[in-house]
This record gives sequence, structure tokens and C-alpha cells, in this order.
Amino acid sequence: PVAKREDDDIPKRCKGFMAPPVTEVRVLRETGGDMCTRMEMLIMETQAEFCRALEKVDGGKFKADRWQREEGESTWGGGGGISCVMQDSNVFEKAGVNVSVVHGHLTEEAAKQMKSRGKVMKGKDGKLPFTAMGISSVIHPKNPHVPTVHFNYRYFEIEEDDGSKQWWFGGGTDLTPTYVNEEDGFLFHNTLKEACDKHDPQYYPDFKKWCDRYFYIRHRGETRGIGGIFFDDLDSPSQEEAFSFIKSCTSTVVPCYIPLVYKHRNDAFTAEEKCWQQLRRGRYVEFNLVYDRGVKFGLATPGSRIESILMSLPLTAKWEYNHEPAKGTKEAKAMEVFRTPREWL
Amino acid sequence: PVAKREDDDIPKRCKGFMAPPVTEVRVLRETGGDMCTRMEMLIMETQAEFCRALEKVDGGKFKADRWQREEGESTWGGGGGISCVMQDSNVFEKAGVNVSVVHGHLTEEAAKQMKSRGKVMKGKDGKLPFTAMGISSVIHPKNPHVPTVHFNYRYFEIEEDDGSKQWWFGGGTDLTPTYVNEEDGFLFHNTLKEACDKHDPQYYPDFKKWCDRYFYIRHRGETRGIGGIFFDDLDSPSQEEAFSFIKSCTSTVVPCYIPLVYKHRNDAFTAEEKCWQQLRRGRYVEFNLVYDRGVKFGLATPGSRIESILMSLPLTAKWEYNHEPAKGTKEAKAMEVFRTPREWL
Repeated sequence: PVAKREDDDIPKRCKGFMAPPVTEVRVLRETGGDMCTRMEMLIMETQAEFCRALEKVDGGKFKADRWQREEGESTWGGGGGISCVMQDSNVFEKAGVNVSVVHGHLTEEAAKQMKSRGKVMKGKDGKLPFTAMGISSVIHPKNPHVPTVHFNYRYFEIEEDDGSKQWWFGGGTDLTPTYVNEEDGFLFHNTLKEACDKHDPQYYPDFKKWCDRYFYIRHRGETRGIGGIFFDDLDSPSQEEAFSFIKSCTSTVVPCYIPLVYKHRNDAFTAEEKCWQQLRRGRYVEFNLVYDRGVKFGLATPGSRIESILMSLPLTAKWEYNHEPAKGTKEAKAMEVFRTPREWL
Repeated sequence: PVAKREDDDIPKRCKGFMAPPVTEVRVLRETGGDMCTRMEMLIMETQAEFCRALEKVDGGKFKADRWQREEGESTWGGGGGISCVMQDSNVFEKAGVNVSVVHGHLTEEAAKQMKSRGKVMKGKDGKLPFTAMGISSVIHPKNPHVPTVHFNYRYFEIEEDDGSKQWWFGGGTDLTPTYVNEEDGFLFHNTLKEACDKHDPQYYPDFKKWCDRYFYIRHRGETRGIGGIFFDDLDSPSQEEAFSFIKSCTSTVVPCYIPLVYKHRNDAFTAEEKCWQQLRRGRYVEFNLVYDRGVKFGLATPGSRIESILMSLPLTAKWEYNHEPAKGTKEAKAMEVFRTPREWL
């Protein structure tokens, strides 16, 4: 069975990671069958796989920072993370792949807000022990013809007063090109759809719509990019099947994105195209600082590691007053797609 | 008397503005003694005076956009504004000076939130007619030794069910240098203190503290710059005296800032200093998008002019992962001041 095989290999699998995992290898071995352990192993593996693939196409090296939530702040709980960053390299302006595994206690109100459907949970004396873990990545390339990619896969577990556990998965992968390339959009969305279809034919259409709704810059009336998939509160049909879907999602990260990097990394570009990329980077910053729930939650949480949260911001961005692309240009065409999300398949 | 003299000159005074005022000159003449009219004239005059002074030191020209809240959206109310922008010019990377005059109806809940002390106001059928007007400006220079300045002065008037009017002023001027220059900090704060002291000896100490508290980037544990003054809900000792204080504040904008531009505009600078400026610009973006109440209110308000609200963002900004200035550098010295606001006088 899968769980057994995963368990046996733990020390060996850990050797391939970017840094030792947040949880001690000894503990991971003892709890090999638990979902927390299996998910931590999966996100560490995904981090290593994606970083190696990015290093290969770039020629540079990631720097891995292993951090722990500070001692003395133990009221917030424990845990830590591994932030891998490659900055101002050959192909990538800023590439960040972050894993975090955090435990602590939530108030009933905070627990309710964490689940987007707002389920009420009963805690012991109003306190609910929780574990939250996930992988989050944003890759900003230098060449304006190579799109930016973002993905995030996460798992939450909350223990109620009666010892029962509430758990759910969330996540998604989405693409932010500066220009719209039909072939790239098709490849990206099709790779995601194939991964989704193995689990439920409704996943791709539902999660594609959810993604367009989520990555929406309301004050601009435009999406951040061309979307992908996004979902939250996934706790069905069973924990095993939900985890199996997450595994399919994480294993599409490399085939969704890396081919687009190889395809475009040497494309010629003009100063105007670079400028347009910088303006779209400005929109990326607007979305992340004004709307992104993960960033807002992180900035408001005491003891969170700000540099890991804001790793998602581009190295450089630009805001020009009243910039509007001229009719008929490639820039105007991209704006049409951002203003009216389309079907790709 | 002041009101009479202001009234007589209205058509002539309007000729010196950057664009025709939001309210028709005919209407302004008829209502010359009203606080709304006097404040609109003051902010238009301040815009013209500051823009001309900036044009003189830069050598470039402002572009004035006169805009109106769109027709068909009349449920939000009327009004408009004049946005003056000079972008990528000789001395300034982005200079924006914006005036807006807006009327409409607020719900009692919205009215309560507008006043920071949360005063409850009774409206006719729960609706309160209001007028909000102000001038807001952010100047981002190219040279990292010329500081960024921001100021905003505003007036609110809300009519209650019984016909009585609630009114208050708010505003402030603050400086965001990339390096800390003792002489500049002293001149800036001292000019503000002299303006404040003419009205109340508590104004400068109180509003200086308020400014340090307001322009605080909580997730970074640092202020945006070296502060200045900030106040809200000013409705004492009388409307006439409060307006007189606002006039003193607006008349310090030029003497607070323009001498610093002349002093530093030709300072030599290195690539490292330019890079540090770009990183501090990133912090400016973080503050404005995450915390600034005016920006948050604007982005969430239907029918607001996004380009005028986000005019405050720099043309360019940068985010480097985990950047920390080396001990003993000028950059580290600036960080000390941002982390622990100091007294300048």
C-alpha cells in the first residue's frame, strides 16, 4: 500500500530535499502513516523537484533558508519553514519556493475564519490545536515572453474538543503572462485539466472558474493573469482521495511551467515589451498586497516570517500614471483577456 | 473681513488654477462665504502654487487632468477632481498633485466609520448628505538624495436629519528620505512646528506623534520615513480657527520641501544609493497598499478614480529577498531612525 511504501523510504527521501524538513526525521519515521507527515514529505519533495528543474533551465543555484518560529513566542505555537530563493539569476529575476509547517492554537473565531465556508468548531476552553502546512511558489522571469507562475498547495488540521479532527486541503496553480500566447495558455490549462480529470470531471471547470474569481484585481476590473485552477476547503470524497488529487496537482507543476520557460527564455524582446512586463508586475504587487488572503493573513499574524511571505513580490515593478495600451496592440489584446477571462480548452 | 475679500476675488483667483475648479465659478461666487467654497479655493490655490514651484525646480511641465465622477452613476453622488502629474521629468520620477471635491449620501454606518472617533450621526431615512474635498500629493524624485514628500489636507461636511452640520478637517505633511540628513530633517520639522505654534503649542508635539504612529509599516516594524505632522477630526476651537490652521499648513508645503530639492537635486549618487532608494520605494508601496486609509477607502469605493488614487505609487520600486544593510552603513543608520522615530527639534 502507498502509505507503507512512503513510510519505509523516509530517511532516504529526506536526503533529496533542499534542507532538512521542519519536523525531525525521527518523528516523521514514527508517524509515517499520518496525513501531516505524508503531506510534509510531499511538499518537501515538490520543493526539491521544482527547484532542481528551475536550476537546470536557469544555470543558477537556489539558496535555501531554513527558519523556525522564534523561541519565546511559543504562545503562537511552533514550526518553521524552508524558503528557497534564486534572485537576479540568468533566466529568473526572482524565483521563490517556500515550504512552511506551523502548529499552534486557534480561537474558535479564528478557526471559523480559516475555513472559507465558516464552519463552527468546538475547542477545549475555546482553543483549538491546529497544524497548517503548505508549499507556495512564485517565479518571476526576466524575459517578458516567459510567463510568471504561481502555485500553492496546503493542508489544515484542527482538533476539536471531543478529539475529532477537521481537515481540508486547498491550493491551485495559475499563470501570469505579460502577453497572451494561445499555445502556452492551452498547454498550461490542458495539463491542469488532465490532472483534475483523473479525479473528478467537475474539478477543472469548477476550479478554473474559482481561479478567475480569486485572482481578480477588483479596483482595476481585471484578472492578474490567465488563471489556472484554485480551490479551498477540499475534504471529499475521502482524505485518501483528496490527498491523491493534491499529489496529481503537485506533480503537474513542472510539466505545466518548465516547457514554457525552455520555449521562450531566448525570445528576443524590445524595451517596450520589458516596460509592459514591469507595468504588469505592478499589478501583481497590487493583487498580492491588497487582495491575496495568504499575504493578508501572514502580514497580520504575529511571529510570521515577512520575508517568506513577501518573497512573492517581483524584484522590480512599475506604475505609470494613466497608462492605457493603444488599440490593436499586443498589450491591448492581453488586456482584453485580463478583463474578460476566456475558456482555453 | 477675510471671507468678504476671498469672495470678491473668486473669478480672478480661478484664472491662476491648473484647471477650472470642480464647482462652477458662478456657483463659487454665489457661495463665497461657505466653508466648502473657501476650502475648494484653498486647495486649488495650493495645487497651483505647489505645481508651479515644482515646475520651476524641475524645468518640466505638469499635465492636468480634469475628471468628473461618471454620469449614470449618480447614486454615488457627484463631483470630480483635477489630477496634475509630471512623470519621468528632469528632477522628478513621478510628481502628483491631486484635488478632489465629491458629494453624495452616506449610510449612518459609513458616516460613523469616516470619523475616526466614530461619532454616531442621524440621517434622514438613514442617509446623510456629505461633501468631502481635499488636496493630496506625493512627489518621488529621481535623485536618491532628494527626499519624497507627501501631504494631504481635507475637509468633510455631513448634514444630519435636523439640518445641523457636522464638519471636520484632517491632513498632514510628511517626509520620506532614503538616507537621513540631519539638516533636512530639522528644516522640515521646524517649518511645520512654526506653522503649528501659531495656532496651538500642543499641535506640533501631538501631530508629530500621530504622524509617526500613522505612517508605520506594522509588518516591518518600521516607519515609512521621518514623519512630520498628521491629524484628523479637527473641529476645534472654531471652524474659522481650524480653517486658519489648515491655511497655515498648506502654505508651508513649498517652504518645507522645495529648498530640499534645490539643495540636493545635483548631488552625485552611486548605483548602490539608487538601489537603496528603489528598495525604500518598495516599502512606500507596501505602506500605501496595505495600510493607508485613504487608498483603502478609495479602492473600495465604487466610482472612484483609481489612477488618481494610485498616483501616489512610485514610478519604479524593488523588492530584494532578505535585504539587510551591513552594520555601520548609511543605510543601516537610516533603518535605525525608521525603527525608532526620533525627535528632530
